Amino acid sequence: MAKSKLDFETRIPRLGTPKIPSPLTHFRHVDESVPVTLMLTSGELNELDTDILKKKFEKGGPREKLYFDPSKTKCAIVTCGGLCPGINDVIRSIVNEANYHYGIRTVLGITNGLRGFIPDYGYDIKELTPESVSNIHQFGGTILSSSRGLQDPEVIADSLERLNVNILFVIGGDGAMRAARSIVDEVSRRKRKVSIIGIPKTIDNDINFITRSFGFDTAVEKAAEAIRCAHVEATGVDHGVGLVKLMGREAGFIATQASLAMQEVNFLLVPEQRFTLDGEGGLLNALERRLRERGHAVIVCAEGAGQDLLGGPLERDPSGNPKLGDICGHIITGLKDHCRKQDIEMNIKFIDPSYLIRSVPANAGDRVYCGFLGQNAVHAAMAGKTGMVVTRLKSSMVHLPLELVTTKRRTINVNSEFWFSAMESTGQMEYLK
Amino acid sequence: MAKSKLDFETRIPRLGTPKIPSPLTHFRHVDESVPVTLMLTSGELNELDTDILKKKFEKGGPREKLYFDPSKTKCAIVTCGGLCPGINDVIRSIVNEANYHYGIRTVLGITNGLRGFIPDYGYDIKELTPESVSNIHQFGGTILSSSRGLQDPEVIADSLERLNVNILFVIGGDGAMRAARSIVDEVSRRKRKVSIIGIPKTIDNDINFITRSFGFDTAVEKAAEAIRCAHVEATGVDHGVGLVKLMGREAGFIATQASLAMQEVNFLLVPEQRFTLDGEGGLLNALERRLRERGHAVIVCAEGAGQDLLGGPLERDPSGNPKLGDICGHIITGLKDHCRKQDIEMNIKFIDPSYLIRSVPANAGDRVYCGFLGQNAVHAAMAGKTGMVVTRLKSSMVHLPLELVTTKRRTINVNSEFWFSAMESTGQMEYLK
Amino acid sequence: MAKSKLDFETRIPRLGTPKIPSPLTHFRHVDESVPVTLMLTSGELNELDTDILKKKFEKGGPREKLYFDPSKTKCAIVTCGGLCPGINDVIRSIVNEANYHYGIRTVLGITNGLRGFIPDYGYDIKELTPESVSNIHQFGGTILSSSRGLQDPEVIADSLERLNVNILFVIGGDGAMRAARSIVDEVSRRKRKVSIIGIPKTIDNDINFITRSFGFDTAVEKAAEAIRCAHVEATGVDHGVGLVKLMGREAGFIATQASLAMQEVNFLLVPEQRFTLDGEGGLLNALERRLRERGHAVIVCAEGAGQDLLGGPLERDPSGNPKLGDICGHIITGLKDHCRKQDIEMNIKFIDPSYLIRSVPANAGDRVYCGFLGQNAVHAAMAGKTGMVVTRLKSSMVHLPLELVTTKRRTINVNSEFWFSAMESTGQMEYLK
Amino acid sequence: MAKSKLDFETRIPRLGTPKIPSPLTHFRHVDESVPVTLMLTSGELNELDTDILKKKFEKGGPREKLYFDPSKTKCAIVTCGGLCPGINDVIRSIVNEANYHYGIRTVLGITNGLRGFIPDYGYDIKELTPESVSNIHQFGGTILSSSRGLQDPEVIADSLERLNVNILFVIGGDGAMRAARSIVDEVSRRKRKVSIIGIPKTIDNDINFITRSFGFDTAVEKAAEAIRCAHVEATGVDHGVGLVKLMGREAGFIATQASLAMQEVNFLLVPEQRFTLDGEGGLLNALERRLRERGHAVIVCAEGAGQDLLGGPLERDPSGNPKLGDICGHIITGLKDHCRKQDIEMNIKFIDPSYLIRSVPANAGDRVYCGFLGQNAVHAAMAGKTGMVVTRLKSSMVHLPLELVTTKRRTINVNSEFWFSAMESTGQMEYLK
Repeated sequence: MAKSKLDFETRIPRLGTPKIPSPLTHFRHVDESVPVTLMLTSGELNELDTDILKKKFEKGGPREKLYFDPSKTKCAIVTCGGLCPGINDVIRSIVNEANYHYGIRTVLGITNGLRGFIPDYGYDIKELTPESVSNIHQFGGTILSSSRGLQDPEVIADSLERLNVNILFVIGGDGAMRAARSIVDEVSRRKRKVSIIGIPKTIDNDINFITRSFGFDTAVEKAAEAIRCAHVEATGVDHGVGLVKLMGREAGFIATQASLAMQEVNFLLVPEQRFTLDGEGGLLNALERRLRERGHAVIVCAEGAGQDLLGGPLERDPSGNPKLGDICGHIITGLKDHCRKQDIEMNIKFIDPSYLIRSVPANAGDRVYCGFLGQNAVHAAMAGKTGMVVTRLKSSMVHLPLELVTTKRRTINVNSEFWFSAMESTGQMEYLK
Repeated sequence: MAKSKLDFETRIPRLGTPKIPSPLTHFRHVDESVPVTLMLTSGELNELDTDILKKKFEKGGPREKLYFDPSKTKCAIVTCGGLCPGINDVIRSIVNEANYHYGIRTVLGITNGLRGFIPDYGYDIKELTPESVSNIHQFGGTILSSSRGLQDPEVIADSLERLNVNILFVIGGDGAMRAARSIVDEVSRRKRKVSIIGIPKTIDNDINFITRSFGFDTAVEKAAEAIRCAHVEATGVDHGVGLVKLMGREAGFIATQASLAMQEVNFLLVPEQRFTLDGEGGLLNALERRLRERGHAVIVCAEGAGQDLLGGPLERDPSGNPKLGDICGHIITGLKDHCRKQDIEMNIKFIDPSYLIRSVPANAGDRVYCGFLGQNAVHAAMAGKTGMVVTRLKSSMVHLPLELVTTKRRTINVNSEFWFSAMESTGQMEYLK
Repeated sequence: MAKSKLDFETRIPRLGTPKIPSPLTHFRHVDESVPVTLMLTSGELNELDTDILKKKFEKGGPREKLYFDPSKTKCAIVTCGGLCPGINDVIRSIVNEANYHYGIRTVLGITNGLRGFIPDYGYDIKELTPESVSNIHQFGGTILSSSRGLQDPEVIADSLERLNVNILFVIGGDGAMRAARSIVDEVSRRKRKVSIIGIPKTIDNDINFITRSFGFDTAVEKAAEAIRCAHVEATGVDHGVGLVKLMGREAGFIATQASLAMQEVNFLLVPEQRFTLDGEGGLLNALERRLRERGHAVIVCAEGAGQDLLGGPLERDPSGNPKLGDICGHIITGLKDHCRKQDIEMNIKFIDPSYLIRSVPANAGDRVYCGFLGQNAVHAAMAGKTGMVVTRLKSSMVHLPLELVTTKRRTINVNSEFWFSAMESTGQMEYLK
Repeated sequence: MAKSKLDFETRIPRLGTPKIPSPLTHFRHVDESVPVTLMLTSGELNELDTDILKKKFEKGGPREKLYFDPSKTKCAIVTCGGLCPGINDVIRSIVNEANYHYGIRTVLGITNGLRGFIPDYGYDIKELTPESVSNIHQFGGTILSSSRGLQDPEVIADSLERLNVNILFVIGGDGAMRAARSIVDEVSRRKRKVSIIGIPKTIDNDINFITRSFGFDTAVEKAAEAIRCAHVEATGVDHGVGLVKLMGREAGFIATQASLAMQEVNFLLVPEQRFTLDGEGGLLNALERRLRERGHAVIVCAEGAGQDLLGGPLERDPSGNPKLGDICGHIITGLKDHCRKQDIEMNIKFIDPSYLIRSVPANAGDRVYCGFLGQNAVHAAMAGKTGMVVTRLKSSMVHLPLELVTTKRRTINVNSEFWFSAMESTGQMEYLK
């Protein structure tokens, strides 16, 4: 893979010099940083320019001096894009950290995503308190509701001024992080001292430099349950085929991790690995052989897999993402035709658990991580940082500039041990060429 | 509702007079029976002829004398039709009861449903032992695999003779119970002493006279989880609509019970209650009003609901069941059109959890019930009864003649407290006319 | 068993004649009733005087005329005794029914059980609204908190007057139902028109005439999980013994039902069935034989089992219930001694899951039932009934006078099929005499 | 903390030069290694000598040449010590990898831990095949059963010779890893070419250099459920205290991680952090204040916490581990006394979920990890390595010498962000001094 040409700058923008003593008397940090080389895997390092290797990441955590005076600070939280387990945990953690540990009195919840800033849609701002968020982590989804698509950064900046917000926390995916950057630019153009902190959310686990996004483990747990059901269905009837569609527009992490968890998947299809339907080494022949030899098969297919097989130019949705073609429908039709022609019985059961995966509450591991994300987002903002995201690399929380995470998508390296293990587990390399 | 004209005969056919002392020294019964009036609810009684009310049901349980000599008895089990939580529990219970308590040495598992008896498909008979079934209740589905459709009773009777089977346990739905009757007729015509015992299976809970079929509670639990997710999705976006499709070809029991469990459903659509899409009191207007007033809506739709809205004659599947039209697709298209015309935003999330509901292991309550079913099936067969099913009425296990359960389907009484409570819970009667 | 001498009166006390038309325009009932014989099992009927068999039970449900004017009615809810899954579901159902369907504006939540009425403890009354209870069914326990023990009915009646309460819903066990009776007597002595409605709660499932109390199924589900763990522990080590203590002071329903669900229990000990520790047919010898033959054993013990083995007079707690002796400790000590003397290795793992069983949210089946209980409690109260409980018998909701349920405890009939099935499942009758 | 003086040698012992071409044609590695600095966190690096920092870790994965000829290789697996979620997953992964990918015909399961090698206990060797292990990952515990304590390495080596075993996989904790070393020494003394590979197991997550041991995430999930119940119990009664005892002899990782997940814990007690019961800054006064201010409290206590408060010399168990004193009993007694003296009501509910935590099946994340461990253990053994363990560091699988992991226990750094976050979450630092 070509070395990254990214102009990688780990210094996080700051609003000014922090001067107010922090109320957090324990474990205060001066700005600390750790070498990039300690934070990335050797695989990731191979993809980077050697210049970058000399840089350092800024560590997360509370600072000795604050930029904002807690007694006068007003925060806002907005949640954008699709649902993902753990959003409410992040909200709760931000509210609790701001209130209990810094003594901030006001945290606003902007509803319906970025459009909550736009007067045309009507405002519905909620005041969030430790009491009002005390149980929200028990529920999936987002108590603030969400929306897709971008909104005019000028109108958003107007609203931030009108609401008198000093700190904005943006929980969202790729699009939301790009929107956050445009808001940073706009408030900076206006010379307003507003800190914009991103908490990256992607159930697909495909944000660059983010090795594990929150909610991913929970999603894999539920995806694995769906695979179990597909296996039961496939073996519950003669020549049964269980086909599970999982999330993964450009990266098949959920599909692959869930397949590794269950070890009952015979064909794993992801966007990163091409395959064909027809011909000797194609999926249809492979399935036929498997049905003849073993009597059943389980297929796991990421939604973005095999898009090249569908033909035609892709449409785009309001956020600019390409609309994916229906690869599972294509496989089902192809398989039915094939089996009819070959005169072989086949009973396919199609399972699409997507909404059942993304709308559940987070599991314990994700909850811990969401707690860290919320705490560190508040620490960073109070120290006057902006235009950055909080995330975990290795076992440390770090600050990354917004640029870094929005440049490209993370995908599965099909030459890695991870993918190799999945291939060993499915055994599909003997069938698919 | 019209009184049942059914020629209701509660006497169970017997192969002959039991003469062998039972090894079960505790709790042995002579044939006992209880008045019909004690076994049915007042609602059910209202639907029956007064003649029937004088009849009695035969109670389940071990008898003092056996018809078959356990040391020479060979049993077989076959599982038919769609999956349902608890099938493996019933299999396990039959095998354990036959082996541990009666000392029967051989229990055969016929694979792939009734076609497992047909030479053309190739035989694959498994020997079932307490050890081989010791953990199967932890898994959903059926270890024997299943199939749909009828098979020639003569060929089945041939196979029973060839395999030297004395007792056949048929776990299956409506169609399988009818098949069991035809097998009873055929072996009786041949004057063979083979006991055929049915264990009625229907995830829809719609077998006549069977107030609660095994697996139903488990299915409701999983269906309720799907409704929860639909609620999270509907409230996670502005003007969100969560639509959950649930099982229920002719009876909406799962949909209704799950809606009652969650109390978050706004529109509940079942086969028993007509509704319209268009017009003042139609679903589309109702949804529009709800979206305008409350911003979101959750719809639960049984697969057999609103079939009259789809037009055209219904096709039939191999078992003779009508193929259902896609009512959910019809609602989605209609709703999208309607909202476009009314210029109201609408984000619909469609969830079809059917395979994720029916393929899970049984919950504790269903397990207990499945255990009773298996035990009582063996007791009945060993006492020489045939052409009957075991089931629970009120809190007693009883024997019912096969005729009784195959005559008609059970459906929700839309004038009952049960349906009334569901309507109170959804509040839909104010919208839908 | 001796015929019940209970002076059984199914007529429910009324505060006066209902005159206000009900806002519930659908499914209104005039007072209806059903024959006792239709509501009980033959086993239960055998225990009753023949006089009773001629009586009728009053059916639950909404009435045509109300006694209270909804616009002026004030309700209160109090929760008493130990936790049980589903309490919050009942609270929520009462609040929603009162508010949405009758238009009652005020429902008060009395906190900390009956002591919430006593000024000495300080009042902490919560106003309950549909919004404040909208998510409480997702949580175990009771949002109103609870307490044990009786309080002076005069002081309670004073508080009811001061708070201007017209209807009091008491959710609680045996003791609370007795307290409810004393409150009925006191307000009646004062000629106050206050309706007192009980919703019987007992995780042990041992309230007389109540075949299944709410929360029981959920408790069994969790108890079964604990048994599964005991089985894993017992087989995970040589000569392993898993001992699970379950609730059941006077009735072993949870222990028995959970044992039937798992079919992995070798010894089931309940209060209803005596056993001995020592001697030929005692538990210790039985366990030794099982360890020598099979290498492991699983014991399920209801907390009230084998109290006669512990000697000494029982102390009593503040509610007057006898304090139970530590039967599991007694078994563990005895078993260790026995194995040491017999020079046989033994590794016992003791599991006490009680709090993990009773504090979880209700499962779907219990939720549906709790919903019915709350709705029917409000219907009954609004029609001017008092001194009664709502419950389900067979598949109908009925009203029972408070006297009926507080007279005696329900226990397992050890001559029933239910117990026989459990004995078949454990196989312990070959060991224990 | 003092720099580690460990003579750290990352070169893994080998039985000889691999010469047989591997059947794994994809992704074959020549021996690869990665710098230590890339594998450890900055915290860990600080504790090491600078010499070590120049060393490299050997990467896991398949090699081009094998040392053993698969067609003649016999493997054995033994499981030692306490139960932990995922043991069966590791067994299954080893069997599948050996059989499907290397074509090894025989994998033996040694039962009852190391004592399965000792003739005095009687042998019970199971042959493990892909079919016999196909479903074992659905169950907790170990299908091979386990035992504690060491056995004579000479007798074990005799058994390995008699059974003709070439590769032994030892799944176990600290003690088992030390036993593995002594077996390596003994077979090496005999000049036998037997590969001994360790798979470290510790539910406490306290093995040196192993950042996350398998089963840990699953344990935390279940522990978090117990904390939830404790919270429900504590708030379900006036002045309620929920006390949860969790695993953690020398390290409080489970207790801390589960507390972070729930954010409902008020006092978290671990072995790494001293506390006092009595006095101004003691736990009893802190609890009293919390009860007076907030009405309830939740305490999570690792079993090894506060051992210094119990007095007296510790006994030791057969494996040489100190027997822990009953700190929870000590707290309960102390708290009851204290509250009686202060005349404050207090209702304590004690929950010990240990066996319910360690005996459940692994969750999806742990399953994936267990799969990697099994695969890599087989790869390493087949390449002729020995005296080592497989584990994950950062996101790579690596080989570590047995010496490295058995030298010392890993504990929580109470000056780390991890512990700080837990302290923020409990707020206990304002109470406990």
